[in-house]
Amino acid sequence: MFYAIGLGLADEKDVSVKGLEIIKRAERVYLEAYTAVLLVEKEVLEAYYGREVIIADREMVESQSDEILEGADKVDIAFLVVGDPFSATTHTDFIIRAREKNIPTRILPNASILTGVGCTGLSLYNFGQTVSMVFFTDNWKPASYYDRVKENVALGLHTLVLLDIKVKEPNLEALARGRIVYEPPRFMTVAQCAQQMIETEEEKGEGICSKDRLAVGVARVGADDQEIVAGTLEQLAEADLGKPLHSLVLIGKRMHDMEKDYVREYAVDKKVFDDIFAKHYHQS
Amino acid sequence: MFYAIGLGLADEKDVSVKGLEIIKRAERVYLEAYTAVLLVEKEVLEAYYGREVIIADREMVESQSDEILEGADKVDIAFLVVGDPFSATTHTDFIIRAREKNIPTRILPNASILTGVGCTGLSLYNFGQTVSMVFFTDNWKPASYYDRVKENVALGLHTLVLLDIKVKEPNLEALARGRIVYEPPRFMTVAQCAQQMIETEEEKGEGICSKDRLAVGVARVGADDQEIVAGTLEQLAEADLGKPLHSLVLIGKRMHDMEKDYVREYAVDKKVFDDIFAKHYHQS
Repeated sequence: MFYAIGLGLADEKDVSVKGLEIIKRAERVYLEAYTAVLLVEKEVLEAYYGREVIIADREMVESQSDEILEGADKVDIAFLVVGDPFSATTHTDFIIRAREKNIPTRILPNASILTGVGCTGLSLYNFGQTVSMVFFTDNWKPASYYDRVKENVALGLHTLVLLDIKVKEPNLEALARGRIVYEPPRFMTVAQCAQQMIETEEEKGEGICSKDRLAVGVARVGADDQEIVAGTLEQLAEADLGKPLHSLVLIGKRMHDMEKDYVREYAVDKKVFDDIFAKHYHQS
Repeated sequence: MFYAIGLGLADEKDVSVKGLEIIKRAERVYLEAYTAVLLVEKEVLEAYYGREVIIADREMVESQSDEILEGADKVDIAFLVVGDPFSATTHTDFIIRAREKNIPTRILPNASILTGVGCTGLSLYNFGQTVSMVFFTDNWKPASYYDRVKENVALGLHTLVLLDIKVKEPNLEALARGRIVYEPPRFMTVAQCAQQMIETEEEKGEGICSKDRLAVGVARVGADDQEIVAGTLEQLAEADLGKPLHSLVLIGKRMHDMEKDYVREYAVDKKVFDDIFAKHYHQS
């Protein structure tokens, strides 16, 4: 059996009891390590499981899937995914490949940032589609996310923005010289995301991500040192939420009073928050 | 500390290792038992935890929250929620009340149907807002969900429909005679939901939930006997997915080929599925 097991969001103890049992008895244990990362190191997982954990980077998952699936028709293979196995499309693809080989599969869902973001107090019923934000470079500032946010904004819905992570990215200069050297991992912060949204807004000018729009930044959701900060995009562009992983929610106008009361507790400046809420958001 | 602990979707072993540790040491353990139910009985949980579990029904959570929170400033209280603690707004409310009493709170997220529905192969990025479907009666057929579905449909997005459950509902006739008698629990099925959607469509006539629209029904997500059935609403209105809990996804037109390939495996009739997909859905 091929098991895709969600590890949850924070540390080695967020795996389910059922998942842990499977990991302990599986023939091989892989850890998908490029769509998200756990807040603990691989060594911590290995010590906790009492098992060797094979890191499956993007290259391995995309080009050596046969190897990962090998023998899964007879023995148990565990493929660990930070968060929930189905939050990233890549894993759906993987299950399709397993099916084609007549390998039985089983998914163990777990907490995902898509629902973990409920820690902000914003109602998950009031979220529209989720978007991703990639690192802008000097000459590449993709703004396709903006149109999706716009669709959510038009309906008064919140938008969860998932932030880019760069793990095991080759250094392009070295690559040009025929050598593979990996860049250090990079994780986008709430501040960087807010800044990029303001940048896109300045270019597009449709008032979707203006700097006075309200948003909430979250960091290390589900962990002991989880942080939540609410404010305008301008305020969040200055906020420091510490270590990864970060995510951001752009607040929609449909926010009701209970959501507001909850989020307000995390405001950088409650007065500013109240004023902007009264001016732009309150719909009743 | 007041802990709201997600139990995940299926059975007693879907709790996280961290959650189980807290449950075992908590002073009192409550189980919220009205927004969702686990697929195992309370007694199974009690045996597994080695602890007494107090059932917290809606009445208790809404009117006796002080009792539940009592002492949580000094000892650990565990409040168990099927799925993820933040998927139901009620629990946000609870945390606000705890805050007002200066009781420290901690949330342990877990799998929710909001992400578990990824088992259909539909990309979670392509979902719009989630809606709820209540049991229609002869003279009460609330159709407000229809407008929200319409918003999603206009954007080509999928809609997750969460189905009504009735637990510990008083019998109205007995109540009129001054006696409290509880009705047996009821759980809406995929077939009932599809039927109700067709009914609303017949009344509204805007083509949002026409009987030839594609949808996917899921039952017991995350459990060994999980079931997934795809087809038109008309086909799903005849489908039997067995025991609770059921949910339904109305498929949006933005569905891409990989999603389609995955979902198609579960089609009642692959030919019908392909034909309708080609006719109404394919956008490339």
